[in-house]
Amino acid sequence: MTFRNAARIVVALAAGIAVTTARAEIVQRTVEYKQGDTVLEGLLAYDTAGPAKRPGVLVVHDWTGVGPYTKRRVEQLAKMGYVVFAADIYGKGVRPANPKEAAATSGPYFKDRALVRARVNAAFQELEKQPNLDKGKIAAIGYCFGGMTVLELARSGAPVAGVVSFHGILGTPTPADARNIKGKVLVLHGADDPYVPPEQVKAFEDEMNAAKVDWQLDVYSDAVHAFTIPEAGNDKSKGAAYNARADRRSWKAMEDFFAEIFSG
Amino acid sequence: MTFRNAARIVVALAAGIAVTTARAEIVQRTVEYKQGDTVLEGLLAYDTAGPAKRPGVLVVHDWTGVGPYTKRRVEQLAKMGYVVFAADIYGKGVRPANPKEAAATSGPYFKDRALVRARVNAAFQELEKQPNLDKGKIAAIGYCFGGMTVLELARSGAPVAGVVSFHGILGTPTPADARNIKGKVLVLHGADDPYVPPEQVKAFEDEMNAAKVDWQLDVYSDAVHAFTIPEAGNDKSKGAAYNARADRRSWKAMEDFFAEIFSG
Repeated sequence: MTFRNAARIVVALAAGIAVTTARAEIVQRTVEYKQGDTVLEGLLAYDTAGPAKRPGVLVVHDWTGVGPYTKRRVEQLAKMGYVVFAADIYGKGVRPANPKEAAATSGPYFKDRALVRARVNAAFQELEKQPNLDKGKIAAIGYCFGGMTVLELARSGAPVAGVVSFHGILGTPTPADARNIKGKVLVLHGADDPYVPPEQVKAFEDEMNAAKVDWQLDVYSDAVHAFTIPEAGNDKSKGAAYNARADRRSWKAMEDFFAEIFSG
Repeated sequence: MTFRNAARIVVALAAGIAVTTARAEIVQRTVEYKQGDTVLEGLLAYDTAGPAKRPGVLVVHDWTGVGPYTKRRVEQLAKMGYVVFAADIYGKGVRPANPKEAAATSGPYFKDRALVRARVNAAFQELEKQPNLDKGKIAAIGYCFGGMTVLELARSGAPVAGVVSFHGILGTPTPADARNIKGKVLVLHGADDPYVPPEQVKAFEDEMNAAKVDWQLDVYSDAVHAFTIPEAGNDKSKGAAYNARADRRSWKAMEDFFAEIFSG
């Protein structure tokens, strides 16, 4: 037993945490499920060394669908001890290969929020079925398109403890539905995001306030759309670019939010 | 040696932190200092069990001056391991007893930002003199009036690693001075703060962006002015009221910010 492991166990004991000497292993597998007649393919992940029951996190992809980026986030969250399910909003095999395809694929969903809600609720229900889920403790996070989607999940009235939007689209055709929101809302936003301009942020705040939702907005300077996605590159002038500082800070903000909504 | 202490030492060793078995004790004492001919009386605090050198935090009072609220925040920060100095912007013995007096006392400072900068820099220099300060690692935090003051400290070009404004006034008569800002800026703001309306927030963002400052703005729903101050009461309609959730979240945001600016 290394010194570091000994220390880890002492800390765990002191904190009243069940100690296991099992080696942590992240299980990750695709899961087929349906919404209506549409076959969807999500991604499930968890740590075999975790507790029998744990909070769940639903992850909703950006406009490229369930791909390598979503997979990395799912792994990160599984390592943090959550049971994680990546929703597939588009359908099995629908994986846009470039921005043009992504725009064409995502476009109809931005217009048809009823379909978005049906698809994301189907994924939510898949996560609810997991035997290692601590029932009632589910958060949903989403990136860009996925940010819009988790907000629609909340507006649909799903029993989600909290939703986190990373550089997500905040606008909705049905702002009055905010009254259905049951959980807390955290919006992580780039100050220079051209796809989410100040008037959209303002409308969102008004929507949430009118419905008395518990919301928080964190705004990061020098950040544009897609600031958590390294694949977006570093050219801010394109309107979408990675920003390491905003990525790190927004992840920490999410962790703090989870600590709050999953406590007790 | 208790089990808990043993665990603490193992953790400290594992993390490469100097271990002391001395019982933690918070030293707190008033410190007289001057700005020009004006005698000021600040408050110094630190933990005797802390490391020989540690980051410093300057705390700037709200419009009531250095009083019980400031003292509590100073103690909290000292327990976290910082060397803490509460600035006195008003002068020794100038301690407004009620809102009317506080408004009368603070008013001239809002108009005379050169005086504010001189006073807060005098306090900053007192903190810099402390033998247990890890030089170059100073943050400044402020509440309401103090939020305005720490932003002016940054605008004055003081070598501060970061400033945190809790429900602070964001406006300044000299926005071009933002170019002097050397550290990072974190603004923690109540969405319904009538003293810091949206146009003031917008002007602040524009000011910071023009000077390419590293800034972040966190906005808390249902929070008005003074949301971290229990003495403000619970009546939102007065425009100033305590909000436990925003208090807790903003303190955590400050902790995360300190972790970032004091690392390395």
